[in-house]
Amino acid sequence: MTKKANSIFSTEIIVRPDDIDLNNHVHFTKYLDYFLAARYDQMSRCYKVSMEEFIGMGYNWVASQMTINYKRSLLLGDVAIVKTQWDSFNGAQVNVNFWIYSKKTNKLISDGFGVFTLIKSDSLRPVRIPQEIVEKYLI
Amino acid sequence: MTKKANSIFSTEIIVRPDDIDLNNHVHFTKYLDYFLAARYDQMSRCYKVSMEEFIGMGYNWVASQMTINYKRSLLLGDVAIVKTQWDSFNGAQVNVNFWIYSKKTNKLISDGFGVFTLIKSDSLRPVRIPQEIVEKYLI
Amino acid sequence: MTKKANSIFSTEIIVRPDDIDLNNHVHFTKYLDYFLAARYDQMSRCYKVSMEEFIGMGYNWVASQMTINYKRSLLLGDVAIVKTQWDSFNGAQVNVNFWIYSKKTNKLISDGFGVFTLIKSDSLRPVRIPQEIVEKYLI
Amino acid sequence: MTKKANSIFSTEIIVRPDDIDLNNHVHFTKYLDYFLAARYDQMSRCYKVSMEEFIGMGYNWVASQMTINYKRSLLLGDVAIVKTQWDSFNGAQVNVNFWIYSKKTNKLISDGFGVFTLIKSDSLRPVRIPQEIVEKYLI
Repeated sequence: MTKKANSIFSTEIIVRPDDIDLNNHVHFTKYLDYFLAARYDQMSRCYKVSMEEFIGMGYNWVASQMTINYKRSLLLGDVAIVKTQWDSFNGAQVNVNFWIYSKKTNKLISDGFGVFTLIKSDSLRPVRIPQEIVEKYLI
Repeated sequence: MTKKANSIFSTEIIVRPDDIDLNNHVHFTKYLDYFLAARYDQMSRCYKVSMEEFIGMGYNWVASQMTINYKRSLLLGDVAIVKTQWDSFNGAQVNVNFWIYSKKTNKLISDGFGVFTLIKSDSLRPVRIPQEIVEKYLI
Repeated sequence: MTKKANSIFSTEIIVRPDDIDLNNHVHFTKYLDYFLAARYDQMSRCYKVSMEEFIGMGYNWVASQMTINYKRSLLLGDVAIVKTQWDSFNGAQVNVNFWIYSKKTNKLISDGFGVFTLIKSDSLRPVRIPQEIVEKYLI
Repeated sequence: MTKKANSIFSTEIIVRPDDIDLNNHVHFTKYLDYFLAARYDQMSRCYKVSMEEFIGMGYNWVASQMTINYKRSLLLGDVAIVKTQWDSFNGAQVNVNFWIYSKKTNKLISDGFGVFTLIKSDSLRPVRIPQEIVEKYLI
């Protein structure tokens, strides 16, 4: 029995002038900001549990690990197409894949994955991801 | 004879998580980044002379002065509606007004104006704005 | 009788690569971030009332207006010398002057002033600056 | 025969208010900016080949991969101690380790490594790291 792969969702992020660095392309850390912005968008739009709802339930998501590969440059005047996919989860942690494409060229600019940990806002301690949340994300 | 006011153009900028600061609203300097991003968008889309074209002609625009008033906070999950207007020009400088609204509430978040100076890319010296550029912007 | 001018304090801020923009100098909005960073430093080091203490007392400072003039560029490898001065106050608001110099050239890079408003953290409403705070800042 | 480990150098970076995000700690992407800022500092101060010299020789360094682990939060009012170490190199690429500590608590905040590629500024193509550069970095 093979595990069905989870959905890949897509968000467009316009490159802003303040994202550009001294090499005249998007600054290398901004791709991770695009990844996070896409997750926020997709949490509410695609998974139907927004970050605000997590916070309202007394939870927060924090980054535990990021791995990113840089393939090509993204330039001013372009739009980033940021695709993300819930890869797997374990206890308090989820593994989320991402791919960033140029809207102009359709070429892969960057890819990688992030590990996020669910914590309780009051104790700041990790907490097992509730089953009802898991179900909403396994789509 | 009254001077006809120049057009006001509008650009939507999605608030990204990396725009939010320790006070849980958009960081006070990011509004100026939104203003600049809106100008870049409107230069190509509305005035039909993109920043890339200015650079191709051996010119660059640099900020000479910024004045910004903060009225209300813009929050994550909202979209900034950034309106700008070429107010006046004199030699190498233009005066551009801006108003930033919340898309959610339609309320004015921030307003102000910026003075930009046209320079030659090679000498970095100010240069009188060419008449054909002035005409494209007086719309 | 002339009013004695308030003290001018100075903070050094190292230019970081992520402060540099597509024009190969410090991004125009980063000077306001340098101004704010200098204020935080000087609040605790020079005025002996840190931002954390204000927050502990149930207060917060928010930006109400910023005016900044750009004179020269600050480059990577340089250090910003950020001087600030409490100019005047009125009710809930203070007017703070700033000057940013290059440590390498001693030349003035940028100057301006900011208006900050003291608010209550719970109500987010402006509150008259308490007399004991005023006295600590009038040095 | 064991390979002698390369030197670990250290740079202090003051946490600025604009580094703080909606969770009231240093934003997760800013640690990579601290890493890069430390490398720039150490390139000129410790290895005696500054980024400006690389650019003067017609070279540039670009990020090819970043892996970062988040252990603890770094807060406003603290200073990041950023340690980096040239781990290994291969052709056009170097592998650089980093560790970020809190100056206040001495605790490890974050660690990871980056892969940087040397490119020719004109062609933007990777280029084998010259032997004289390698020797300056193997200290």
